[in-house]
Amino acid sequence: MNKYSWVWVLLLCFSVILNLLLASYVLINEGNSKILSILRSSDEENELSWTRRSAKEAEDVASISCSGDGRAFLDGILLTANHLEGANGGDPLPSCECNSCYYGADCSQFSPDCPADADSGDPIFLEPFWMKHAESSAVMVAGWHRMAYKFGYEHGTFISKELERLLRELHATVGNANTTGKFMVFGAGSTQLLNAAIYALSPQDPPSPTRILGSIPFYPLYKSQTDLFNSKNFEWEGDTSMWKNTSLPSEYNSSVNFIEFVTSPDNPDAELKEPVLLKGPSVKTIFDHAYYWPHYTAIPAPANEDLMIFTLSKLTGHASSRFGWALIKDQEVYERFLNYMTLNSFGVSRDSQLRTLKLLKVVLGTGKELFEFGHRTTRTRWESLNKVLSASKRLSLQKLIPRYCKYFQNVTVPSPAYAWVKCEKEEDENCYEALLRDGGIIGRHGSNFHAENRYVRLSLIKSQDDFDWLLKRMTALVSQEQVREGYGGKTI
Amino acid sequence: MNKYSWVWVLLLCFSVILNLLLASYVLINEGNSKILSILRSSDEENELSWTRRSAKEAEDVASISCSGDGRAFLDGILLTANHLEGANGGDPLPSCECNSCYYGADCSQFSPDCPADADSGDPIFLEPFWMKHAESSAVMVAGWHRMAYKFGYEHGTFISKELERLLRELHATVGNANTTGKFMVFGAGSTQLLNAAIYALSPQDPPSPTRILGSIPFYPLYKSQTDLFNSKNFEWEGDTSMWKNTSLPSEYNSSVNFIEFVTSPDNPDAELKEPVLLKGPSVKTIFDHAYYWPHYTAIPAPANEDLMIFTLSKLTGHASSRFGWALIKDQEVYERFLNYMTLNSFGVSRDSQLRTLKLLKVVLGTGKELFEFGHRTTRTRWESLNKVLSASKRLSLQKLIPRYCKYFQNVTVPSPAYAWVKCEKEEDENCYEALLRDGGIIGRHGSNFHAENRYVRLSLIKSQDDFDWLLKRMTALVSQEQVREGYGGKTI
Repeated sequence: MNKYSWVWVLLLCFSVILNLLLASYVLINEGNSKILSILRSSDEENELSWTRRSAKEAEDVASISCSGDGRAFLDGILLTANHLEGANGGDPLPSCECNSCYYGADCSQFSPDCPADADSGDPIFLEPFWMKHAESSAVMVAGWHRMAYKFGYEHGTFISKELERLLRELHATVGNANTTGKFMVFGAGSTQLLNAAIYALSPQDPPSPTRILGSIPFYPLYKSQTDLFNSKNFEWEGDTSMWKNTSLPSEYNSSVNFIEFVTSPDNPDAELKEPVLLKGPSVKTIFDHAYYWPHYTAIPAPANEDLMIFTLSKLTGHASSRFGWALIKDQEVYERFLNYMTLNSFGVSRDSQLRTLKLLKVVLGTGKELFEFGHRTTRTRWESLNKVLSASKRLSLQKLIPRYCKYFQNVTVPSPAYAWVKCEKEEDENCYEALLRDGGIIGRHGSNFHAENRYVRLSLIKSQDDFDWLLKRMTALVSQEQVREGYGGKTI
Repeated sequence: MNKYSWVWVLLLCFSVILNLLLASYVLINEGNSKILSILRSSDEENELSWTRRSAKEAEDVASISCSGDGRAFLDGILLTANHLEGANGGDPLPSCECNSCYYGADCSQFSPDCPADADSGDPIFLEPFWMKHAESSAVMVAGWHRMAYKFGYEHGTFISKELERLLRELHATVGNANTTGKFMVFGAGSTQLLNAAIYALSPQDPPSPTRILGSIPFYPLYKSQTDLFNSKNFEWEGDTSMWKNTSLPSEYNSSVNFIEFVTSPDNPDAELKEPVLLKGPSVKTIFDHAYYWPHYTAIPAPANEDLMIFTLSKLTGHASSRFGWALIKDQEVYERFLNYMTLNSFGVSRDSQLRTLKLLKVVLGTGKELFEFGHRTTRTRWESLNKVLSASKRLSLQKLIPRYCKYFQNVTVPSPAYAWVKCEKEEDENCYEALLRDGGIIGRHGSNFHAENRYVRLSLIKSQDDFDWLLKRMTALVSQEQVREGYGGKTI
């Protein structure tokens, strides 16, 4: 071989090596492509079609920040063209709805003069649980979802059988109510069911209207709703105290019927209550168990009364869905209940029933998490407020004792939904005007619950922002009191 | 060069060509990868996170076939382990809910002995519109969506301002009601609003209860709901006919108040109605305009009465959402309405309001499509039934005339929601028992509407399956009559 041949051989070797490298790239790449194409086809299987747009829209709205002190909702007021436009530069976005005392387009401004509003029973303390379980609690409603009046099975009812099944399962799991042998009726929150219950328990066209009673302090709707309907069948009688442990006054002969509302735990004072009226064929009882869940109270035993009312509002925190249910032992009472629900509103929104179904699946599917989270929050808030008020001589809280809770299998410390604050000094007979107003604290006056205005109800179940501000205001109020007491001591 | 050199040169040439080919493959491939990676990253931007699972679940349920003669819904009864399992082999799927007369796990079986059920007012005829607009009408509800009692803006209300805005826009677009200067209240369908309206218009604790009237044939709920509440403030009086165009009987002095229900178009007979009672300060009118939409009637002019009630049920077909609204001129009446809605149910389900908002966006965003589709369907059904019954001497339909419709800017032929069938022969005073029952046709008896049982209401707004079967049954019934008439002629 001549010297040129070596050049040819070297060039050839180089070329062959390059070929081998390139060929191995091609082979590896083809393999990857195959894997990619398999992945891609499985992606396509998971691909969404008609749901993608509204899913994206919900995620876009959820991602509007509102500085963590507010929330944008799908049905919020839309920002006008002058404001921020949607991510796609087209559709306007809903504006932020700020927590109390926060303001500005993104809720980033705080108003330090703003009073702490602890008035309403909005159960927003459970919102973080639902944010955590965003994936499992979301529900996609098709435009054609269940348009008819009735659920199609059997002879048609206004009630989702799946939802009824889950509610029974939930009561069995929590152990707060015995549903065996009881009928179930749905209503727009417990609200609509309260009057339905009175209707169902009162005789039609009686010689004398059925008398409705509650024990002070009681939930004001019992009276205001009864008054609203101004029925010939029933009327508001008042407080149970005059009948306490005594036989009925002689002017009430056996032809007079009574219905007693028993709220347990009570709203406002969180006590577990028992009926006050003597039992008898002319006395019926409506047990309002809105707060009989482990968030708010120890569960000593399953409730097993003839007529019990529950509401989603205080179970999951979805006050806005207006969903409640009644458990009813007697078939005739049940049928009158159904008749009331039919003629008042043709049953409960099926949209609310669908959403409730999804929420209950999460509650049942996450063990004790909702109740542990709920109880931890209310307990912590109650303890914080208690600590602050223990330093005050002018303000006190209701006394609640630890109890054994069958659900948590433990003695649990109190965790009420509301603080029932009392102004202790004789001259502070209007607690709000004498004390709380100047401290910038808004609560619900005792007279709302037909009690003295020496009492004020403060909500412990609003948002964390709301509670934090309440605690700050209350701490300032108590410090002020201590400073005054101190100066007082010195000047005398 | 020797002969071996040529071999080297040839090998080298081959190798270089292979190099070029492989290199060009690599270059092209790399380019594609870049494009792919760009595509992939834009896919990722569109990627869904917490909404994907429920979106997929809704699509899975929607894809359950039910043979086109039934529907599976997210909240349907779940198939047990013995039945079909979900696509992922895990979660059970909801079972098919079959249209009337269809049965079997996938609704593929038809029962030819099954009667045609034209009883209910389920507005399923609009379902195909919503299936067509699946993408724009779907709504994704987050688990934490709007949990509080009130919408956060201003002092808080139970009413979505966005929804109120769209409803006003819709009335302006359709031209069926003048909303200017009127207040709006939402209710659980028109159902809940009917009694709210009576409450709002009746004086509280009057010397004599307000008398409620309707014109036969009238929607039965007016009476049954009024009777249910058995109020001291109002009571059912009956038919307006005794007051027709006359002054009030002398026993009714000016201290007696009257409320007249005017249903226009009427349910059951589709007539556009006017009040019958003489006007005066003691006479109020509730206009029930549930059917005053271009699907069911020509719209001669915008309604502009003091108190008007509408419902989603007959506008979009979503009877199950229980959503209705009232337009109210007088502020005092409006405030009493609000009070009623607060004390009866704390307003209307916010879940229903959210869904209604989405549906209305589609109605407004698709021009005249909903109304054209609706009108075409009801008109076609009316014409088909009319054609069949025109051959009968025993059965007749109500007479309806074409009218100029401002919305369609055209004279439109009748397109009622219901056929108000009359048995013409004197002996057929119970039309159902004398004729329809044997023909396998179920309708709503005239006595339900406080009319004679010589009349029967047949629904023209149920599913296409339902209407087709009704038409087939009716054709057979009329043919039978003609055969009998024919034989009769021969035998005499």
